[in-house]
Amino acid sequence: MMHQAAIELGVTSRVLAGAPDSSAAQVTGQVEIGDYTQWEDVNAVSQGADAVTFDHEHVPNEFLDGLIEQGLNVQPQPTALINAQDKLVMRKRLRELGMPVPPFMEITSVEDAREFHRATQGNVCLKARRGGYDGKGVWFPDNEEDTAELVAELLDKGTPLMAEKKVQLVRELSAMVARRPSGETVAWPVVESVQEDGICVEAIAPADNPSRAAELAVSIAEELGVTGALAVELFETRDEAGQPEIIVNELAMRPHNTGHWTQDGCVTSQFEQHIRAVLDRPLGSTAMLAPHTVMSNVLGADFEPDTPIDARMDAVWRRFPQAKIHMYGKGWRPRRKMGHVNVTGESVEDIRRIARLCSHYIVTEQWADGWSEYRKAHR
Amino acid sequence: MMHQAAIELGVTSRVLAGAPDSSAAQVTGQVEIGDYTQWEDVNAVSQGADAVTFDHEHVPNEFLDGLIEQGLNVQPQPTALINAQDKLVMRKRLRELGMPVPPFMEITSVEDAREFHRATQGNVCLKARRGGYDGKGVWFPDNEEDTAELVAELLDKGTPLMAEKKVQLVRELSAMVARRPSGETVAWPVVESVQEDGICVEAIAPADNPSRAAELAVSIAEELGVTGALAVELFETRDEAGQPEIIVNELAMRPHNTGHWTQDGCVTSQFEQHIRAVLDRPLGSTAMLAPHTVMSNVLGADFEPDTPIDARMDAVWRRFPQAKIHMYGKGWRPRRKMGHVNVTGESVEDIRRIARLCSHYIVTEQWADGWSEYRKAHR
Repeated sequence: MMHQAAIELGVTSRVLAGAPDSSAAQVTGQVEIGDYTQWEDVNAVSQGADAVTFDHEHVPNEFLDGLIEQGLNVQPQPTALINAQDKLVMRKRLRELGMPVPPFMEITSVEDAREFHRATQGNVCLKARRGGYDGKGVWFPDNEEDTAELVAELLDKGTPLMAEKKVQLVRELSAMVARRPSGETVAWPVVESVQEDGICVEAIAPADNPSRAAELAVSIAEELGVTGALAVELFETRDEAGQPEIIVNELAMRPHNTGHWTQDGCVTSQFEQHIRAVLDRPLGSTAMLAPHTVMSNVLGADFEPDTPIDARMDAVWRRFPQAKIHMYGKGWRPRRKMGHVNVTGESVEDIRRIARLCSHYIVTEQWADGWSEYRKAHR
Repeated sequence: MMHQAAIELGVTSRVLAGAPDSSAAQVTGQVEIGDYTQWEDVNAVSQGADAVTFDHEHVPNEFLDGLIEQGLNVQPQPTALINAQDKLVMRKRLRELGMPVPPFMEITSVEDAREFHRATQGNVCLKARRGGYDGKGVWFPDNEEDTAELVAELLDKGTPLMAEKKVQLVRELSAMVARRPSGETVAWPVVESVQEDGICVEAIAPADNPSRAAELAVSIAEELGVTGALAVELFETRDEAGQPEIIVNELAMRPHNTGHWTQDGCVTSQFEQHIRAVLDRPLGSTAMLAPHTVMSNVLGADFEPDTPIDARMDAVWRRFPQAKIHMYGKGWRPRRKMGHVNVTGESVEDIRRIARLCSHYIVTEQWADGWSEYRKAHR
């Protein structure tokens, strides 16, 4: 999706892709097939670029340092990126900066885990410091013995761990900003991010009363020296007086799932903005085009319908001509993010319903509300 | 611009381009360099395609017939396309259908021209039947002798001619629709198209009181069997009672300059819609995202600024972060359409002013209103 934005900007993109059928390799003209964990591949694809950037945070930072030593322009820089790679580093840094984080602790032994379990009255969220996503690498053990057992097992496997206090969640928010190396920072309207089983299923823009989330995301971008797009995933909880309180959950330094709505809902999409930002070019307006936009993720169902994807998209368009369907060219897998549907409009209830119906239809070939094209045609 | 839309739809595009540095060849993965006036080139690029379509109307119809004979799916079909290629064929067909056209006549001799000059009391617009655009191939001779002389000269060169009565223009409109082979037709809001020296400089969406222009465009698409995007360029004049009257000027069967505003102003852009239409897939909503959108063409100035285009775009974005700049990757030439700027908003006066300032700055490196970034920074 960055590539389409690059074309409009007159920017040429070259990608390092893991396989010829990966999403980016399907659409980009200049593709190097390789492995981001191999220095030779990362180094080769970066040569001659005006800027080197990422669609995930897992390129080893020593490689990025190696590129920077050659004078290459890496954005975001490893010093910022480490905060999106290692949850413990991020938590420590944000606490130093006075940002709202839950009580947390590094876990290097079963004794650490038992201590944290007791200190939080059993409200333990255990996390792998690196590599988790979509609910992977996060555990909520039931009691102290389970905690101890799980920690022993994970440490045995060499998984670096941390624990943080489980919060009483009211809702999740996502605050996205973009920042240029020379300093300009802009924020999009904050969205509510609806999760099911640890996976984002829906983003609702703008969130109702998002409190000071946007300002917090701008501060984080500035304090950590983030460049490009930054998504600050937030938990909203209640303080002891019942007032809304936000806590930083995760950081992502790239275009993010909760920002996909900007493609059809904003003057400037996160993809265009990320490219402008990493090239240190002036940032675009983040104003919304319609009062509300909802993004609904297309998540692989438990089965794959026989009908080809194009025919399922056609059925969606026949019923909802306003549905903006974005598919990623990925093969089916249950719960996999295979695309998303954006719908803009005046009534948030209507567009949530429509976006969910569409994304559900694409993966199941079934209208969740029982609507039938046949019945409509033959009534 | 069709290619970016194709990517989002999961459609693979292959282009026949005249040169490796032509706009489409710069961004498309599968490019055949060749000549659309050579059967071998047109034939080779078309093999295996689900649909064959165009970004201009000048591919010879006998080639298209040749493709159709092989069972290839050409959209729009030559039977429709002829009406966008030959102005006399179009005028005759529209008159047969009872569509509003000015008085016109085929001109095959100087005597024809003298007769038409007298019959219209000297209100002669002389046109080459084929190949004209942006004011080229259209003449307004001053008197009967000039008319006779010009016609003699053009016929001598072998230019097929027609003449039509010059109308008293109030304004120009453009009504765009898209139609699928299976029949579905949708219309975008009609725009006012502002011309200078025969070149469109601006499109204002939606036009004030566009009368029955959209309905007329839908009828033309249906009657002529047009598929894909159709632009109906219209003259608005006044009838003898002073009431607005519209007359068809030209037809274009492809995404059109006066539809570029849909990229940033509509749920579905003309580029996405054209692809969906020629593939006979359900069409998208043509609803506007904002009350008004203005497109201002970036036309090559008399000189080319030394400052690189990227730096000029940056200056535009610093002043107007809401400006959507679309450049075509074309070299400079005076009056050449090198790109366009879209601006959406509430006040049509404001966005016209902004869009014009931006497009003028890009080609001249000058703010037409005397604004100065330096002065602003040092005030």
